[in-house]
Amino acid sequence: MKTVMVKLGDRSYPIHIGEHLIGRRDLMAGHIKGQKVMVVTDTTIAPLYLGTVMNALRAFTAESILLPVGEEHKNLDVMNRIITALLEYQFGRTSTLVALGGGVIGDMTGFAAACYQRGIDYIQIPTTLLAQVDASVGGKTAVNHPLGKNMIGAFHQPLCVIADTRTLRTLSDREFCAGLSEIIKYGLIRDHSFFEWLEGNIHALLERNPDALAYAIERSCQHKANVVAADEREADVRALLNLGHTFAHAIETGLGYGTWLHGEAVAAGIYMAADLSSRLGWLDHAKVIRIEALINQAHLPVRAPHTITSARMLELMSVDKKVRDDSLRLVLLQDIGKGIVTSDFDMVELKETLSHCRAVPEVA
Amino acid sequence: MKTVMVKLGDRSYPIHIGEHLIGRRDLMAGHIKGQKVMVVTDTTIAPLYLGTVMNALRAFTAESILLPVGEEHKNLDVMNRIITALLEYQFGRTSTLVALGGGVIGDMTGFAAACYQRGIDYIQIPTTLLAQVDASVGGKTAVNHPLGKNMIGAFHQPLCVIADTRTLRTLSDREFCAGLSEIIKYGLIRDHSFFEWLEGNIHALLERNPDALAYAIERSCQHKANVVAADEREADVRALLNLGHTFAHAIETGLGYGTWLHGEAVAAGIYMAADLSSRLGWLDHAKVIRIEALINQAHLPVRAPHTITSARMLELMSVDKKVRDDSLRLVLLQDIGKGIVTSDFDMVELKETLSHCRAVPEVA
Repeated sequence: MKTVMVKLGDRSYPIHIGEHLIGRRDLMAGHIKGQKVMVVTDTTIAPLYLGTVMNALRAFTAESILLPVGEEHKNLDVMNRIITALLEYQFGRTSTLVALGGGVIGDMTGFAAACYQRGIDYIQIPTTLLAQVDASVGGKTAVNHPLGKNMIGAFHQPLCVIADTRTLRTLSDREFCAGLSEIIKYGLIRDHSFFEWLEGNIHALLERNPDALAYAIERSCQHKANVVAADEREADVRALLNLGHTFAHAIETGLGYGTWLHGEAVAAGIYMAADLSSRLGWLDHAKVIRIEALINQAHLPVRAPHTITSARMLELMSVDKKVRDDSLRLVLLQDIGKGIVTSDFDMVELKETLSHCRAVPEVA
Repeated sequence: MKTVMVKLGDRSYPIHIGEHLIGRRDLMAGHIKGQKVMVVTDTTIAPLYLGTVMNALRAFTAESILLPVGEEHKNLDVMNRIITALLEYQFGRTSTLVALGGGVIGDMTGFAAACYQRGIDYIQIPTTLLAQVDASVGGKTAVNHPLGKNMIGAFHQPLCVIADTRTLRTLSDREFCAGLSEIIKYGLIRDHSFFEWLEGNIHALLERNPDALAYAIERSCQHKANVVAADEREADVRALLNLGHTFAHAIETGLGYGTWLHGEAVAAGIYMAADLSSRLGWLDHAKVIRIEALINQAHLPVRAPHTITSARMLELMSVDKKVRDDSLRLVLLQDIGKGIVTSDFDMVELKETLSHCRAVPEVA
């Protein structure tokens, strides 16, 4: 087992990474203050891992609640079901929530923990690659609003994160690959040698080689931990983590939540950021080709869906950035391993990127 | 104008108390960082004061949203209307919310500010006596859940509080008197001489004498500011502020939100706490009589409604305390001016209090 520490003063916490961790009582028990624990999971994960987790919690009064699967259910109403369950079981302020699942479960459970009685503890047990390398680390919790993704939420750090790499074996290929986009992102924004490692080891990752996975997850978590420790509430450097995300949010909102996986939209967004960086003369075209090749090898898209016009993409991006920052700033690349947050680009080039990176409709 | 500072490090803020404050641009403008401001108010307050506030904000891009009146509307769905408005107007992270109204508007607006994009700024302009002395100070924000009051919320401090005592002139007698219960509370839990001042000046307050009001509000806010500065997240001494509130929450949940005003339920709860303190031998019966007399003079109830049985009250209190603390602790009185948080009481005496303090049904 490897452990990465997220250093945030009295809110510091460990990320444990390794095999066979979800059944270990010792990893959770030391963090839980009260006697009551509620495990929040979904109908896909419950049959696979809920029994193991409940068994590890048998020293506590443990309950569980199953939520529906998918980003389209990450909203206030479904979050409120967690609150209702806590109240029905008369869980108090010293209770602990456990998020067992992917990013949707983690984000909703974290937000429920942030606002139930103005804040209770929670533990993250991410079971998807995306959640292990990204969603479960950093304390960003949220639900979606029909008019915008992650618009209702809180910063609320977990007590600990338990990333059991064995849970990745049961992921569908599509879910697994979606997680690779955030891993590629860390290489692109701040770690050139990790990007090169990924180019050399993408096949080992796709085969779900345990050592390759553990290495990629640890290195990704270490990057995220360092960024979050430097800028917990995203005043500054944390915004780098949003490489590809403004494009991705536009795709997700445009298609409707749950059509593309978040990681798929991020992959296309990363490619668009690289394409725009190249058009601005900041990034060699040869490097864009390498980025495209790695995304392709990861079986992820480099094009936005053809059903969203370029004009609509721009409109959705403007709303997304407006409501987030009041100006259209993007994370772009000066090199592989060197991302910057900037509004120093021209609309002409952005429109070219949007037009170039839109998929061609298939011939029926 | 008097100013009380709430000292919370980099989250410190002023409470301005006086006449003709809501029209003053200088009080708000210095705190607002961005260009966009949304005023949240209700359909009762809007015709009275919204124009004045919008005029004071004319240097900004200011919008407003009107919510329905009453505690029964303090829920997630209505809070979400604020979020929807912010998104429809494409308000970003540097936007500021202004809560113009009573405790319901303040609590909901504060919670919307706490969770919109994981936290934006807000200003409180409380227009009821209850909100001026209590709800708007201390950063507790929340909405109700059908199974419990204030169960979904956050700690989120405002940028400033503007308590314009002229707004109290338009309050109904019922709304005005409801605010007196929290003022009486401060005297009871930590200020014997203030309690005596209230006994001597209750008529001036009921006549809404500006000097008496300003004094009572300032002294109450100073108490709340001191308690909150010592214990922002209610680990300890802040719990003293809950005198009467466990009884009150049971009354409010038992009757349905919005039947009694919060301040009315608190008044009955304060009397019940005094009655129980007396039964336990901690408080002279003569002092209970003085407390009852002051509550009566303030036209507030000292009995729970007869429609809730004692057994039901006990059940509702148990749930309330269970979900809040996992044990039935109450704020009781060792003297006028000396409250304590304790679970050192007997169920027999508590049941006697609940039975004794239940109203007799009126003869039809």
